Amino acid sequence: MENLQKYIDKLNSLNFKDMYEGDFFLTWEKTDDELSAVFAVADALRNLRERNISTKIFDSGLGISLFRDNSTRTRFSFASACNLLGLEVQDLDEGKSQIAHGETVRETANMISFMADVIGIRDDMYIGKGNAYMHQVVDAVTQGYRDGILEQKPTLVNLQCDIDHPTQCMADMLHIIHHFGGVEHLKGKKIAMTWAYSPSYGKPLSVPQGVIGLMTRFGMDVVLAHPEGYEVMPEVEAVAAANAAKTGGSFAKTNSMAEAFRDADIVYPKSWAPFAAMEERTVLYGNGDTEGIKALEKRLLAQNAQHKDWCCTEELMKTTKDGKALYLHCLPADINGVSCADGEVEASVFDRYRDPLYKEASFKPYIIAAMIFLAKVKDPAAALKALEDRGAPRRLFL
Amino acid sequence: MENLQKYIDKLNSLNFKDMYEGDFFLTWEKTDDELSAVFAVADALRNLRERNISTKIFDSGLGISLFRDNSTRTRFSFASACNLLGLEVQDLDEGKSQIAHGETVRETANMISFMADVIGIRDDMYIGKGNAYMHQVVDAVTQGYRDGILEQKPTLVNLQCDIDHPTQCMADMLHIIHHFGGVEHLKGKKIAMTWAYSPSYGKPLSVPQGVIGLMTRFGMDVVLAHPEGYEVMPEVEAVAAANAAKTGGSFAKTNSMAEAFRDADIVYPKSWAPFAAMEERTVLYGNGDTEGIKALEKRLLAQNAQHKDWCCTEELMKTTKDGKALYLHCLPADINGVSCADGEVEASVFDRYRDPLYKEASFKPYIIAAMIFLAKVKDPAAALKALEDRGAPRRLFL
Amino acid sequence: MENLQKYIDKLNSLNFKDMYEGDFFLTWEKTDDELSAVFAVADALRNLRERNISTKIFDSGLGISLFRDNSTRTRFSFASACNLLGLEVQDLDEGKSQIAHGETVRETANMISFMADVIGIRDDMYIGKGNAYMHQVVDAVTQGYRDGILEQKPTLVNLQCDIDHPTQCMADMLHIIHHFGGVEHLKGKKIAMTWAYSPSYGKPLSVPQGVIGLMTRFGMDVVLAHPEGYEVMPEVEAVAAANAAKTGGSFAKTNSMAEAFRDADIVYPKSWAPFAAMEERTVLYGNGDTEGIKALEKRLLAQNAQHKDWCCTEELMKTTKDGKALYLHCLPADINGVSCADGEVEASVFDRYRDPLYKEASFKPYIIAAMIFLAKVKDPAAALKALEDRGAPRRLFL
Repeated sequence: MENLQKYIDKLNSLNFKDMYEGDFFLTWEKTDDELSAVFAVADALRNLRERNISTKIFDSGLGISLFRDNSTRTRFSFASACNLLGLEVQDLDEGKSQIAHGETVRETANMISFMADVIGIRDDMYIGKGNAYMHQVVDAVTQGYRDGILEQKPTLVNLQCDIDHPTQCMADMLHIIHHFGGVEHLKGKKIAMTWAYSPSYGKPLSVPQGVIGLMTRFGMDVVLAHPEGYEVMPEVEAVAAANAAKTGGSFAKTNSMAEAFRDADIVYPKSWAPFAAMEERTVLYGNGDTEGIKALEKRLLAQNAQHKDWCCTEELMKTTKDGKALYLHCLPADINGVSCADGEVEASVFDRYRDPLYKEASFKPYIIAAMIFLAKVKDPAAALKALEDRGAPRRLFL
Repeated sequence: MENLQKYIDKLNSLNFKDMYEGDFFLTWEKTDDELSAVFAVADALRNLRERNISTKIFDSGLGISLFRDNSTRTRFSFASACNLLGLEVQDLDEGKSQIAHGETVRETANMISFMADVIGIRDDMYIGKGNAYMHQVVDAVTQGYRDGILEQKPTLVNLQCDIDHPTQCMADMLHIIHHFGGVEHLKGKKIAMTWAYSPSYGKPLSVPQGVIGLMTRFGMDVVLAHPEGYEVMPEVEAVAAANAAKTGGSFAKTNSMAEAFRDADIVYPKSWAPFAAMEERTVLYGNGDTEGIKALEKRLLAQNAQHKDWCCTEELMKTTKDGKALYLHCLPADINGVSCADGEVEASVFDRYRDPLYKEASFKPYIIAAMIFLAKVKDPAAALKALEDRGAPRRLFL
Repeated sequence: MENLQKYIDKLNSLNFKDMYEGDFFLTWEKTDDELSAVFAVADALRNLRERNISTKIFDSGLGISLFRDNSTRTRFSFASACNLLGLEVQDLDEGKSQIAHGETVRETANMISFMADVIGIRDDMYIGKGNAYMHQVVDAVTQGYRDGILEQKPTLVNLQCDIDHPTQCMADMLHIIHHFGGVEHLKGKKIAMTWAYSPSYGKPLSVPQGVIGLMTRFGMDVVLAHPEGYEVMPEVEAVAAANAAKTGGSFAKTNSMAEAFRDADIVYPKSWAPFAAMEERTVLYGNGDTEGIKALEKRLLAQNAQHKDWCCTEELMKTTKDGKALYLHCLPADINGVSCADGEVEASVFDRYRDPLYKEASFKPYIIAAMIFLAKVKDPAAALKALEDRGAPRRLFL
């Protein structure tokens, strides 16, 4: 197996010095060089692990996770990334903890961080809340570090918020890069980020938003397709448009799934909830308006049921580039006749792409580990070389 | 304390090469040499730990646990075994995870396994389900490894299924071997695996099945005793009979606890549910037939109540070999006047055997660690010697 | 940053040899030298970590936690302490475990301890129960170790019982020592441990009891203030009085918060439940008397509501020494207008002391780690020096 040199050369060509001791909130807050550095480090860490070389950079230390929504994939990806680097995961299970009514975020954040090197948070349920909460946590621990309360400033990794799902979309992107043989082959490729029907109506917007906010940076033609009324956050659409203008790609919107799929190189059909409805829900929850929430839910389900035809069918797949666009999904998908009667994708399509889908998912632990590595290691290129030279086996007596 | 040489010599006399990168489902799927290798490695790992020598063979890596039933002993044994070898435990708590309705086992198995070296599963509730589920998991990760999704194939350790409880029964067996001073002293010893009354009627069959499937391989006279109607799986009885025929021991059945206890060297009195009833329950659950389940439960409790005389009393113990058979139990036991009015064993009997019972349990972490070690280490004899020579202290500054 | 020499010199002047392989139940069961050793080791471990020097003394091993009450601070402190020393935390979640009705403490304690080096327990809900339970656990594992069931005797750390909260109070005390520039400056300082109103009426007594039992050992003037009827355990008051007599300090009681605050150097205003009522509740729970518990709760809430004037106000703070006593709290505090309408402290007071409060909390992981270190390391002074000399970085590539 090849050595690390190409990743090290790549890193040496990039400027990412501001990532040291930093955090990862949204991909569009990072420069192109910084995103490239994440990809290069993720590939390098995977290369080392495949060669049975330990990448532990911590002798001890905690990675704190806080999941405000159920999670399997991201939970295990975060645990894997922490373990790969030598951190032990400690989960802040809010059900078992003694967070008092009215306790400030500042207090909780400091209380859990005395020996925390990383904090990973998933908080994606309410518009305007998740990302804001993450910033409060980072502000709190930054202040705690400056005031001498904490001996280190833990690094925040956004494991999904109301705006972006950066570890997912970066993993998706690294999968695309590998699939097409390098980032230099992406110019002019068409990617369709499209809404698809699911009987569960309230899925987060962070994936479609994250995808249009990230994929528009590689010179691709990004099309966002959804039924009328399923708009995403306008701020993120603006980000996508600005990205496209800068990179020579394009960002277009349509209300036709067929149009989006036509000649697409990549398709990403997935259910999400209308942004405006999610904002409404946030207000109703804030007011404790149970009746209002029920009424909203009923209205959304009715609206949803009108769009069962938004499904990734074999027929639609045939209209993509050479009939074989790369099919993406963050998983779990709603599969026709498997998890539901009508869903996001026909079973035969899903089955054909099972392997690539699992490979797509397999990048997430490395993306998370790379985000941590870049925040914690002063000279990542030198550190990777040193890890290779040290050559400590991950597993003995193979 | 003695060194490792005798275990290494033992291993060098055995053929267990097929265990490398393998899994552990049922004891009767393993050769005699393979079982002997598990015992030898378990003893060797214990010897090293007692001499404060580290047995870490992993620098990083995860041991995934999935418990579909409550567990203390096995949960802590698995955690101890993983820790002993250098793996961090990550529990797949299905309550907190986002396993979609209809999500395939293949998908879940791959999603949790990106950095998993071991997967331990307890799934003992429904006849025909637990062992089958474990095979689905292993098939999925084997395919995932072949397809390049996973960088390693995690090893499955069956922590109890509907058919066998191999980590328990192997620990029981190692306890017996130590108690009688070596496997060579077991020929002709009589062991009574007998049903006993418990107010809780639905206990798994995996222990009695595991015991008759394993203990018949050492030339012992194995007697299975239970009231009429409390039959175990016929396939496992067939395994026991075939084992006995091959090893010159015997396998007999009786409906009399007294007959089983008479002159027994070892007794293992324990409640279990009738196999046929458990099969019926599995069907009822599958159909969501709540009324049917209630009716079955009522019938079983009534049937159960007729057999309160199946208790391990002082009187019965007196009829065993020299009045002092080795009393075994997987714990927790239902003790008369302690955990219930009428149970599996009289308090004075249980109390007298408390120390041996706890010693019996103490083998389980080492049995699990040995199963992992044999699956992950290419040359276990050489590796044990290398660990001894390295002599890294488990605990510093003693 | 300074080196370890002063802590090593300190340790060399103390006699704490009985702590080796011991446990930590109550501060007043320890000699002055032993408490000083805990402070010295806590400071030394912090010094090493601040200098990025690893303090791992375990290559593998488990730290078992058992929380019978919700916890964030103590849970993360225990996890941090274990991680700092190289132990992996395994939580005994009684909800997920298979602890049988009537299962003895002896059995559970042994079953979880096969590879446990430390057991941390919080059990503070019922008078006469928590500390007794911890002793049962220690007796069980001591016997298990002697009988050859366990290869090591795990060390118990009392993470809060019905009598004392030693890890909290020792952290509070170390904070005081640092704040006043050394233990030698504490003679004659006045500390007011006073009751304060909280809408939640049933808070444990372990903090006020722990504070008067510990702070009276440093020559300070300790005042315990509470409304009539809110007495703490008389045995602990006796301990406090005896301590004061021995060290030349004083221990006084009053029913006036104003009197306690007057000229105080340190104030610790905090709600707790009346001791007699907690004893009554323990009996009612034991009898399963739900009606009785409801009636008691109603009576206590009514009694409580009469004392809303027991609040740490700006006005009261002005009456302390130079108007700027050190304000302590174990957190979370009930803050007026933040977590409740009327609470233990005015928001402006709490806000002013936020930094010192968080620093106070930051000592707890090190106090716990020091307790473990002193129980597990034969020659702590030499071990600390060896760790410094080894100089293994906690975090690489900084």
